[in-house]
This record gives sequence, structure tokens and C-alpha cells, in this order.
Amino acid sequence: MPKTPFEKYAQEVNVKNHFAVQFEITDVLFSGQSDFQKVEVVETVGHGRMLLNDDLVMLTERDEFAYHDMITHVPLFVHPNPERVLVIGGGDGGTAREVLRHRAVKKCVMVEIDKMVVDASIKHLPVTSSELDSPRLELLIEDGVKYMRESTETFDVIIIDSTDPIGPATPLFGEAFYQDVAARLSSNGIVVAQGESPWYEATMQKKLLSVVQEIFPLRTYYNFSNLTYPGGLWSFMYASKGRHPIHDFDSSKVSASELKFRYYNEGVHKAAFSLPQFMKDNLEGLIQLP
Amino acid sequence: MPKTPFEKYAQEVNVKNHFAVQFEITDVLFSGQSDFQKVEVVETVGHGRMLLNDDLVMLTERDEFAYHDMITHVPLFVHPNPERVLVIGGGDGGTAREVLRHRAVKKCVMVEIDKMVVDASIKHLPVTSSELDSPRLELLIEDGVKYMRESTETFDVIIIDSTDPIGPATPLFGEAFYQDVAARLSSNGIVVAQGESPWYEATMQKKLLSVVQEIFPLRTYYNFSNLTYPGGLWSFMYASKGRHPIHDFDSSKVSASELKFRYYNEGVHKAAFSLPQFMKDNLEGLIQLP
Repeated sequence: MPKTPFEKYAQEVNVKNHFAVQFEITDVLFSGQSDFQKVEVVETVGHGRMLLNDDLVMLTERDEFAYHDMITHVPLFVHPNPERVLVIGGGDGGTAREVLRHRAVKKCVMVEIDKMVVDASIKHLPVTSSELDSPRLELLIEDGVKYMRESTETFDVIIIDSTDPIGPATPLFGEAFYQDVAARLSSNGIVVAQGESPWYEATMQKKLLSVVQEIFPLRTYYNFSNLTYPGGLWSFMYASKGRHPIHDFDSSKVSASELKFRYYNEGVHKAAFSLPQFMKDNLEGLIQLP
Repeated sequence: MPKTPFEKYAQEVNVKNHFAVQFEITDVLFSGQSDFQKVEVVETVGHGRMLLNDDLVMLTERDEFAYHDMITHVPLFVHPNPERVLVIGGGDGGTAREVLRHRAVKKCVMVEIDKMVVDASIKHLPVTSSELDSPRLELLIEDGVKYMRESTETFDVIIIDSTDPIGPATPLFGEAFYQDVAARLSSNGIVVAQGESPWYEATMQKKLLSVVQEIFPLRTYYNFSNLTYPGGLWSFMYASKGRHPIHDFDSSKVSASELKFRYYNEGVHKAAFSLPQFMKDNLEGLIQLP
């Protein structure tokens, strides 16, 4: 049995895929068990602080910008005028932080089920939680599935920044949820969602596109590289009622925005939708992007 | 101290970056110490057989196609008529296998310094070594640096399929070597080289482009995702006397070739050259790709 934190995390991640990523951990800054999951913030060597939920790496300070750039700026630069944005999950604050950099955004609603993640992030992860007190942010601690079912608000962009489809996030990968997402989206609306690993979760990737295929006329995945997720390559699902992620992307808006990024840029935006052949083969007939 | 092979490999890879990838190993099929390095072939759970040199993962059967597709098909589809191809390193045979799928290739010379890698691959890695007996392949067991210095042959594409710039591969990252590469390349010639991790080897990536900046007018990196390399994201260096990897890429040749790929396709070719912003920032002034 593993004894040190260093060994422990590696072994846990390994359970499913016989593959693990392993980090050297020097300190445990926070460890708690919420109603939903185990929440930990640890100090690593070389990767800054790390957030783990149920022993799975959520982010590190070293590479969180890749995930947060790509889950936000892709839809926000495709939508012509993203005034109202909804984030489901994203308790660390990184997604809200990037959403709020867009001046067009008048209001960002963030619905996180687990207050412990938010509190631990505010205390120990200032890099991601820096905008959680923004006047343009409405932070709700509640079940995103329930919120989506009961809300009557309309959003231009909805971002599902969830954990894996095990534990509390499971309903976020279901059809009932996406029916509610569609009902909450404006006519040009876009939804993006954490879409798992093309290498390890090929079946889940098929399933999620199947779930949305009757709901959204445009649907696909786009990829980015996350240093600290197993296998590196990671996907976001993109679905929209009418906005094409390439044809409706006006790259001049990126330079005009004067925003500086560390991962995202105009070339990366377009390139992210060019999927490796093994992924295209797996998703054949499910991707709809004329 | 680590005791099982499973723990051992993980800890070794971790030395430099405080990060490791860890695999479950069920059997050691081959283990030897050559004049140059430790060579091992092991059986993993879920990733097929794995080749390791000096405890670093070189390939697994599960994902080797990504590396071999991208190191070969990118330059071979940019060059108008790649008749003569040189591979330095690549002892497992995977690069030669993909090169020889191109009908234009009349001759592929492969120069591998370590016979033990070739022999172990022929015996234990039939997936990659399948074309090492091709009549169009000239396999030389000798020092690639020496070969490059003394050869009088000319090549259309030169592929440096090397290990990391530690141990036997170190001179393959030096300026003298690239002067010889340029001398051996035809007028439209292209060289690509294993280019390390953008996340972990930013300094090395700068250095390699610096090395070639006086030698090749066109030079950059392109990326792909390697499941079993630390961090996933990986680069190849691309340099040429005159062939631009995007402008001189005729994508219709890909479909006309009727070759089937598992990673490479026309979209992936172009997308690979769109680098994440942190990588562009690191390589500012060194990338030359008008």
C-alpha cells in the first residue's frame, strides 16, 4: 500500500487505466471531505499548487491557463456578443476569471455545487480565484442540474466546467441536462463542456456527442494539451444552435481585444478543431460541423 | 527506494521534472546494457509492449502511431518528390515503416548507432520493426554523426529520430551536425527532428532553433500529442532550405495517396504548426516561417 502522498496520488489515478501521472508533493495545504467529494490543495515541486478532487488532479498553478484559456476564449470569441455567460462547476474560479476578461460580458453566473472547493480555492489558490469577488459575477452554491432545470434566464454562452462523469458530475453528461441547456441558450448560443481524454475515454466521448445529437445542429470536440492530465491531450465538447466555431470565428476580434493569453491565440483556436484521425474515426457520424 | 518495476520506471522518469508517468508492467521481455544505453522491452497493462532506453519511455504499441505518423508524413507530404530519405536513429523501425509507405520513396537509409535496439525491436516489437527487411531500406549500424560527416549522398528528407539530448544523442542537437545535415540535403530538402517537450524543455527548444538559425531559412516546431511522454504535448523541429510546411503543402496529395492513418490527416498537418502562445513567446525571434 502506498504510504507517502507522492506515491498515493499516483496509485489512485492509476486505478482505471493502468497509467498514472505522478507529482512530488511537499505539503498538504488543505484536505477536507465535503458532502460530494474529497477536496485537497497541495504544494508540488515544479508545478505550483495543485487542486485535487477525489484524488484526481483538477489543476496546477503551472498549467491551469491552458484549460481555462481554451474552455472560455473559444466560445467567447465565436459568439458575436457574449453578454451573459453561465458557468456550471468551475469552483476554483479559473473559468470565471477568463470569462470576465471579456468586456462584452455584462454578467457571469457561476453555479458550483461544492462550497468547499470555492472556499479552499479562495484561501489557497489566489491565481484562479482572483475574480470570484467581481461585481459582474453572481456566484451560486447549488446543484447545477437543478439550476439548469429551474432557471428562466437566457445565456449566450454556457460552460460546463465539470469533473469526470463519476460522482457528483454524472448528471452533467446526460440528455435531460442538455435539453435544459438548450432551453437556457439564446438563439446564437454556444455550450462547451469538459470532454475528457481522446486516448482513454473514447466511449464516453461518443456517448456525450450522442446525447446532444438531437438537440444541437452543430456539435464536435476541440482539443488542447493539459500538462497535468493523464495523456496530456484533452477535449472540450462544442455544441451550438447556429454558431460555427470556425466559419463564425472572426479572428480580428482576438487582436482587437488586446487581451494577452498564454495558451490561446488565433491559430490555436482554429487548429484545436482539427482532430487526430483516431478521434475522427471514433466519432464518425456523430460530429456535425459542415 | 523503489522495488518493483512498476515503481522503478516512474521514479526514474521523475528525476528531472518532479513529474512522472507511471505504467503497470507485467513482464520484462528484454533487458540489456549496450555500449550506449540500457535497452528494455516490457509488457504493460493496457498499452501493449513498451520500449525503454535508460529508463525513458521510447514508445508503446498503443500510441507509437502518433509519433511515427507525425515525424514522417509531415515532411514527406511537403516535399514534392521525396525519393531519397535518411533516418538517423529510429532503431525500433517505426519511422522507416511509415517512410516506406510512400511510393515516391526509392531508397530509405537508416543509421542507428545501437544494434541492441534494432535486434530487440525485431524480436519483441513486430509492430514497429515490420519493414526493417524491406529491399528499399538500407540499414546501417553506425554513428549517425559520423555518417552525416562522411557521407556524400544527397537526401530529400532527413529525419532525426533521436532520444533526448543526454547520452548518445547529445551531438545530434549540435551545430556541427546540422551543418552536415544541410550539406546532405537536396535543394528542396527538409529536415525534421525530435524536438522535446514544450512544457518541460523550453530552454532546449530555444537552443535547437538557435543552432539551425544560420543554416536554414525556414525553421519552426510543430506539435503532436504523445500519450506516453511526460506532459503529452511533444514537438518536432522542422527546418528547410526552401519548402514551407504550410504553403508548400498540397493537401490533395494526402487523399490521392490513399494511405490510411491513425493520427495524421490534412487538418492535423496544418494545425500542428499553430503553436500555443507560451511556446511562441518562448521561441520569439527564432521561428522563421513567413
